[in-house]
Amino acid sequence: MTEPLTEPDTPTRRPRERVRRQVIGAARELIEAGGYAALTVDALVAASGISKKTVYRWWDNRADVALDTIFEAFGEPDAVRGGPVLDRVRHYLEAEARYLGGPAGPVLAGVLADAQHRPALAATVERRYFAARRDGLGALLHEAVREGGLSAGIDADLTAAVLLAPLHQALLTRYPSLDEDTARRVVQLVMHGISDRGSA
Amino acid sequence: MTEPLTEPDTPTRRPRERVRRQVIGAARELIEAGGYAALTVDALVAASGISKKTVYRWWDNRADVALDTIFEAFGEPDAVRGGPVLDRVRHYLEAEARYLGGPAGPVLAGVLADAQHRPALAATVERRYFAARRDGLGALLHEAVREGGLSAGIDADLTAAVLLAPLHQALLTRYPSLDEDTARRVVQLVMHGISDRGSA
Repeated sequence: MTEPLTEPDTPTRRPRERVRRQVIGAARELIEAGGYAALTVDALVAASGISKKTVYRWWDNRADVALDTIFEAFGEPDAVRGGPVLDRVRHYLEAEARYLGGPAGPVLAGVLADAQHRPALAATVERRYFAARRDGLGALLHEAVREGGLSAGIDADLTAAVLLAPLHQALLTRYPSLDEDTARRVVQLVMHGISDRGSA
Repeated sequence: MTEPLTEPDTPTRRPRERVRRQVIGAARELIEAGGYAALTVDALVAASGISKKTVYRWWDNRADVALDTIFEAFGEPDAVRGGPVLDRVRHYLEAEARYLGGPAGPVLAGVLADAQHRPALAATVERRYFAARRDGLGALLHEAVREGGLSAGIDADLTAAVLLAPLHQALLTRYPSLDEDTARRVVQLVMHGISDRGSA
């Protein structure tokens, strides 16, 4: 066995390191030169020297390559560790705003736009980005319910979606602004609600 | 003067009724046959019998035609009138979910996808759809603050964005589900917040 099985549920779905490095390196150069629109599989084959057959063996589609590229080249949103769990919820949203406000944002917007015409891409980006973000934040919210701070009756999945959606919308429509201040204001608003009953 | 000045700030920006009817009718047929992707200006010229010059005289781009078409052919989201203002906030969100869950939704998703590559389209769809929805909901929220029910300290623009964003995200990523139940749950969540302080 020449490669460690790093993904136990799909142990064969990982290319050799050389293939991976060449494909992701070429994808990054294409994206940096022309954005997500420049990342076609044909361009990737030409730029990487890796055959189309091999690209399609390891990646489902261009969205799949683009997501690997932003995660590996631009990093994932910062992991949030330690501290009071409600602070970690806020830090999670701030990290998401920083990440989407950086070079990964326009690539993700391009993938999402492309996905509107291609159901397979939509499934890829939903699973690998949006559902993953909701799951990460949802786990923190469950923890906050257990530790105290959040109401036991909340729907963690929907709450995660409500917290993340303004930032994800900002990626596409430029409102609200995609920054940490928006992230903090959204958390504050969703935490305390808008009803005047609380102060009555 | 042969035409009434229905738009005082831009009185010349309205085509003759015949031109309008032919262009919007052709756009609707193109959209119904092939979605927003089928609505190119060339296809519109061929299908409507109206010259490209005339189309561009009255519409900025294909997004502009698409938005007129969904508003005229599929109706605007239901107007919300009367009743307690907090009920009207909920009805506004429910109407938005119904509207985006109907035939207008995929067209708007197509416009928004297209806009990721074309800044002029992005400005058009932001102004004519997303900002208009936030303004409509924001006006209701201001009214609710005045009448009582909402906290005086809320930022109505951000609150409108937080309430609408899950539905607008659902249009593109299929989560949360785009229906009235989601609209009601989002209003409930944002109204009362998720902190356990309220019940402490």
